[in-house]
Amino acid sequence: MLRTQVRTQLSWSLKRLSSSSAKLSLKDINPYVIEAKYAVRGKIPARAEELKLQMQENPKSVPFDKIIFSNIGNPQQLGQKPITYYRKVLSLLQDPSLLQLLKQADCPSYLKSQYPSDVLSRAERMLNDIGLSVGAYSSSQGIKGFRDSVAAFISERDGFKADPNDIFLTGGASSAVNYVLQILCNGRKTGVLIPIPQYPLYTATLALNDCNAVPYYLKEEDGWSLDCDSIKKIIKGQTDEGIKVNCMVVINPGNPTGAILTKEKMVDIINVCNENGLVLISDEVYQENCYQGDFISMRKVLKELQEEHKGKYDNVQLVSLHSTSKGVSGECGQRGGYMEILGFSDELRAVFTKLCSISLCSVVTGQALVDLMVQPPKKGDASYNLDQQERKEIFDALKERSLKLWETFNRLDGIECQKPEGAMYLFPKLNLSEKAIATAEKKGLKPDEFYCLELLEKTGICTVPGSGFGQLPGTWHLRTTFLPPGTEWIKHWENFHKDFIKKY
Amino acid sequence: MLRTQVRTQLSWSLKRLSSSSAKLSLKDINPYVIEAKYAVRGKIPARAEELKLQMQENPKSVPFDKIIFSNIGNPQQLGQKPITYYRKVLSLLQDPSLLQLLKQADCPSYLKSQYPSDVLSRAERMLNDIGLSVGAYSSSQGIKGFRDSVAAFISERDGFKADPNDIFLTGGASSAVNYVLQILCNGRKTGVLIPIPQYPLYTATLALNDCNAVPYYLKEEDGWSLDCDSIKKIIKGQTDEGIKVNCMVVINPGNPTGAILTKEKMVDIINVCNENGLVLISDEVYQENCYQGDFISMRKVLKELQEEHKGKYDNVQLVSLHSTSKGVSGECGQRGGYMEILGFSDELRAVFTKLCSISLCSVVTGQALVDLMVQPPKKGDASYNLDQQERKEIFDALKERSLKLWETFNRLDGIECQKPEGAMYLFPKLNLSEKAIATAEKKGLKPDEFYCLELLEKTGICTVPGSGFGQLPGTWHLRTTFLPPGTEWIKHWENFHKDFIKKY
Repeated sequence: MLRTQVRTQLSWSLKRLSSSSAKLSLKDINPYVIEAKYAVRGKIPARAEELKLQMQENPKSVPFDKIIFSNIGNPQQLGQKPITYYRKVLSLLQDPSLLQLLKQADCPSYLKSQYPSDVLSRAERMLNDIGLSVGAYSSSQGIKGFRDSVAAFISERDGFKADPNDIFLTGGASSAVNYVLQILCNGRKTGVLIPIPQYPLYTATLALNDCNAVPYYLKEEDGWSLDCDSIKKIIKGQTDEGIKVNCMVVINPGNPTGAILTKEKMVDIINVCNENGLVLISDEVYQENCYQGDFISMRKVLKELQEEHKGKYDNVQLVSLHSTSKGVSGECGQRGGYMEILGFSDELRAVFTKLCSISLCSVVTGQALVDLMVQPPKKGDASYNLDQQERKEIFDALKERSLKLWETFNRLDGIECQKPEGAMYLFPKLNLSEKAIATAEKKGLKPDEFYCLELLEKTGICTVPGSGFGQLPGTWHLRTTFLPPGTEWIKHWENFHKDFIKKY
Repeated sequence: MLRTQVRTQLSWSLKRLSSSSAKLSLKDINPYVIEAKYAVRGKIPARAEELKLQMQENPKSVPFDKIIFSNIGNPQQLGQKPITYYRKVLSLLQDPSLLQLLKQADCPSYLKSQYPSDVLSRAERMLNDIGLSVGAYSSSQGIKGFRDSVAAFISERDGFKADPNDIFLTGGASSAVNYVLQILCNGRKTGVLIPIPQYPLYTATLALNDCNAVPYYLKEEDGWSLDCDSIKKIIKGQTDEGIKVNCMVVINPGNPTGAILTKEKMVDIINVCNENGLVLISDEVYQENCYQGDFISMRKVLKELQEEHKGKYDNVQLVSLHSTSKGVSGECGQRGGYMEILGFSDELRAVFTKLCSISLCSVVTGQALVDLMVQPPKKGDASYNLDQQERKEIFDALKERSLKLWETFNRLDGIECQKPEGAMYLFPKLNLSEKAIATAEKKGLKPDEFYCLELLEKTGICTVPGSGFGQLPGTWHLRTTFLPPGTEWIKHWENFHKDFIKKY
């Protein structure tokens, strides 16, 4: 008898002796948790992690020398440097004794020279806003002084005054999405319009809340734009089926598409929401990542409409999201973000506050980072020049690599890609042959999954199949960031792609 | 016509002109969000915030000179100093350029003297664990090196080896509770046993997940202990009503009771869970706050049972929670915590990981703080003496104030309190007169709410009524922390109480 068989039999007889009940299995738990999917950290990235471990043990077992994590917008994982000003201030917030040291008259110039004067005054102002310590829970809505900073930033950006009481500081934008959708999901008869392709946080959160994700397809051939007439038809169709659509999600700049909405489209969207009583969630976490012109917020467009047509747009309810994880900050691990809620009644605002209070508060250093992001050093401040230079370098590198990757794709057969306008992603279409599709099927994979897996196994480049974001049936895509530095990996991808097309 | 009437009529006619739909109201949203309650930041604390604002404008409008926030375990809000070693390391993690400076041969001794050598080596090791930067998303389960530290801590604490793969680093214990209950709540037919009184995060999370909170009452006269025979009856009663109880929550040391379970009770609890197939959630966030003897973890008791009775306890599924917010750390705003899951199948562990992945990762500096909390400086390390001294001072002050407050309560008529054993709270019983109860009723308040509100308005001391935690019907309590420094506030409370008893 084999040793493993013996062991199995032994443990089986022990179980029979026991008076304990059976363990929980999948069938015993919340089915919506099982249903929820999040491909950005799904099958392909999981295989990449396996390969990484395998390489540590046996570097020669794979045909590449490193994994390129292009599956997730995680800039600092790929070596992007944090903004110096942010980190110096955060470092002082964590250790105010260093701030005291720096403020002493006899502090050596050697040390003092490392801390520009505006870093010290900023840390001092922020500690004052915080009260005593970043280690204390803040109010659930977030520290008032930081919300003032956000309101000032929004006012300046849009030319319409913002109110700090409309701002909620949250753990990244993810937790804001969670709060809003949890509030809006009123059972199985509720529908939330989401773009397809979309960032899978939305479908996952709707699945967790047992609520209908109502897809509206973005038009790839039209630069991933959207068509409000077809959205109206979708709402009517849902209503006929007894589903009350109460919310529309827009991601602008787009994730995974990289597209930016025109102002005209934004007016259309606001009209659809206004006419149909939909809460509009405008996910604007990539607002600093606009590579072709300035960002226009949904809020600004709404405020202009409200100004032009007195009374007509008073009932629009808008939730705008922002984050410290993207832009040129890329501070993903610090979990900073905010949502601004406009047009909600006081009783609903109280519900938002209560829901936030159940998890007490978002991390205070993340809240501080929001303050730093929205109010960077100004002209004349000691840190201004370095800060501007760092921002410009990061922005230019992103823009340049986005174009480089886009040009590469469009030079190749079997892959085509819309011109990148914003965000951190390209979402090229894979024109796969019948042979490729058949091979994928034989392996039990979706065709885009098959391409991404082959790309990973051959080059170490980790991407996410389009099926993780949703796509028009019969089309295949993938999402890749353009974050990895250098262009060598793009060359490797190009070579892989040519081989793949030749083989399939 | 009054001006407000004109305005109302004007806005009404504007609305008639508009083609927009009505705004969302409470009846349109998720009823479970409305139902969820969280008294720790409820009505009384909200009134305290109002009074605080009022005092800023008119200090003489209240009969006290400051608000004493005794409603929430938030030590650093009340002036508790953070542990120096934690903050120096976190400061270097935020700004690794300072670490480089300190490591340079020509770094002036003035600066070097501020950073003991173990602070530098610790920061270096942790940056290495993190990879590049605290600004990158970590793996969703948490940074492996930090999970190794937690596993080493648990192994040492319990004398039974722990596995880093069982550890999930979470945003405080709140988010761990969220994950576990979200997974376990399998619709309205699921029940979760919770102690009454309880920390209201549990009832709130169960309400959000539309799942039954099945109360079991703690026995106040028996030092807030529990009785497993009655719990078995409760399970049977629920089963008869078609409710599948699949989980039992234990808070040890107790919140709000401050009680500590005996080892015998813990064996009873494990037996109940084993015999009835219940997942056992052991909330042990106050494990450092034991004022009468050493802490014994539920895990240790389970491991001993598993060792003694081979096979009999193999199916027990245990989730243990810990946090950086409590103990002597009190770093609430940093949102660090972990859960250890034992006895779950691989497929269920994968569900935990997926659920964590939807919100990407917990804040990396909070993860770092977990590492620091579980592995403080050791004997012989440069920071050891100061670190030990700081811990001892915080611990002794907490213990001393708990006894002082307890003695005060028990000296007074109309209030009685169990002896504090652990945690940060006392939960005294208010023996209110019929007159007090009738007066409360007239004011539309619960009797304990009335007492807490009077206490706040007269002395500035903010507490939470027992009704926010649950209590035996017909009894009235309140929860207070013993965190506020000094003893003057205790004197004020005493005077207030005597007046209250005299008046009612």
